[in-house]
Amino acid sequence: MSNIVNGKEMSEKILNEVKQELKFEMIKPSVAVIQIGNNSASDKYVSNKMKACEDVGIYFRHHQFEAGTSELTIVNKIKELNNDDYVNGIIVQLPVPSNYNEKRLINSIINSKDVDGLTDINAGRLIHGKKTLIPCTAMAVMEILDQNNVELSGKNFVIVGRGKLVGRPLMELMLERDATVTICHSKTENLSEYTKKADILVSATGINNLITAEMVKKGVIVIDVGINFEEGKQSGDVDFDSVSKKASLITPNPGGVGPMTVAMLIKNVMTCFRNKKK
Amino acid sequence: MSNIVNGKEMSEKILNEVKQELKFEMIKPSVAVIQIGNNSASDKYVSNKMKACEDVGIYFRHHQFEAGTSELTIVNKIKELNNDDYVNGIIVQLPVPSNYNEKRLINSIINSKDVDGLTDINAGRLIHGKKTLIPCTAMAVMEILDQNNVELSGKNFVIVGRGKLVGRPLMELMLERDATVTICHSKTENLSEYTKKADILVSATGINNLITAEMVKKGVIVIDVGINFEEGKQSGDVDFDSVSKKASLITPNPGGVGPMTVAMLIKNVMTCFRNKKK
Repeated sequence: MSNIVNGKEMSEKILNEVKQELKFEMIKPSVAVIQIGNNSASDKYVSNKMKACEDVGIYFRHHQFEAGTSELTIVNKIKELNNDDYVNGIIVQLPVPSNYNEKRLINSIINSKDVDGLTDINAGRLIHGKKTLIPCTAMAVMEILDQNNVELSGKNFVIVGRGKLVGRPLMELMLERDATVTICHSKTENLSEYTKKADILVSATGINNLITAEMVKKGVIVIDVGINFEEGKQSGDVDFDSVSKKASLITPNPGGVGPMTVAMLIKNVMTCFRNKKK
Repeated sequence: MSNIVNGKEMSEKILNEVKQELKFEMIKPSVAVIQIGNNSASDKYVSNKMKACEDVGIYFRHHQFEAGTSELTIVNKIKELNNDDYVNGIIVQLPVPSNYNEKRLINSIINSKDVDGLTDINAGRLIHGKKTLIPCTAMAVMEILDQNNVELSGKNFVIVGRGKLVGRPLMELMLERDATVTICHSKTENLSEYTKKADILVSATGINNLITAEMVKKGVIVIDVGINFEEGKQSGDVDFDSVSKKASLITPNPGGVGPMTVAMLIKNVMTCFRNKKK
């Protein structure tokens, strides 16, 4: 039987530390979320972020735009927030409706307030091994591994999913930590050939039960990033019941990476807040 | 017996096309190379670039600084070149002496003239799948594979070497083309476990004869990026004599990736030149 990561408990510890720190601040840190149109999953994510922020003492601004709003109006709002000394972090809630240029919106955010770590320049800084703001989910995976003292150097680290929120930045972080990294994705032939060799396996696809017990070796560490909703019930990429019997460490889903991702967002807001005070 | 890539012939074809195109231009494209201090390998690389530029009709400016020159003086020269309408591409010849901040120098180059593809923002644009200037050696590998009609989608692509000039950008390019990508490096345990599985193997370490016949499968495609000089003689990472007996396609070294890298630099200069004219 494997050790099961308690993402909720782990995240609460981080959030509590922030809460303590913020007791001694006169002016709260502030984060602004830009949301365009209606998307029920986004509503849920935004409300999770809001709750976490308000709990720790971060002022949360929710800028909701109707789907018909011109892109220029939204870019101008972002610019206004860039210049607002009382705003420390800015988020464009993804996905945006398809008629908007997502990349343009994201790159309108000033790099020093890009708490999702998604502007071109912050991504480039990550590749080049510089201190930068890093996408929260990739940070969450690292934090979970580190808090469980997982040795990374030289290990066979396999990521399933090549997105810019998880797979790509995680690869950079893992290379910095001397892991050997493989990225698999929807076009990979013989996926299990790769996953079976993994010492550490991260799945970030959103495909329910993609990873089964036959696809992993005994003692593997499994981090389940995927999020699927079926009939209102959340599940992950990993067949937890069977895989947990072989894994030495595994995240449940829900209750694993999710809460830690929110905690990492709070960490990024705090980084921006502290940098600003310097 | 494998097909052997003729990098020299392949590059000459590209250079000839550029030469033809430039016959009809009144003002030549121009590239400026900043070189600091003395480094005999750098001298050779700079002179290769100069020769190729002058052959095709690109005006080459060589700005040589003594090792004691202040960093500010060099940054100011870069800014001057950024603003010079007659300069299309700027290169900071690497490595710079260790008392200089290499990243600062490179990021002083305006993104639109960054023909080595090394500024933070150009690296970030690559990660985010945008049109951008790409490091020449990574481009050379892609061009060799493409000109030989190598199928990439779903293939097991293994890179040995995680540098920002080859391994990291190549990984991004390969993911865009749907290959499954593994990056190995000096800390990888059991390197041959990975290389033996490779459909396409790129080695970019600078370790002489690192890749031997026992480490590859029959029919593998091998691209040898490494450059070693011993007693004045150039060799690569791959034990060519033995590996070429198993490979279906292989680059010699010298005469493979090297000439193609210079051709890709010329391509990048031409891209900047054409973008400028638009």
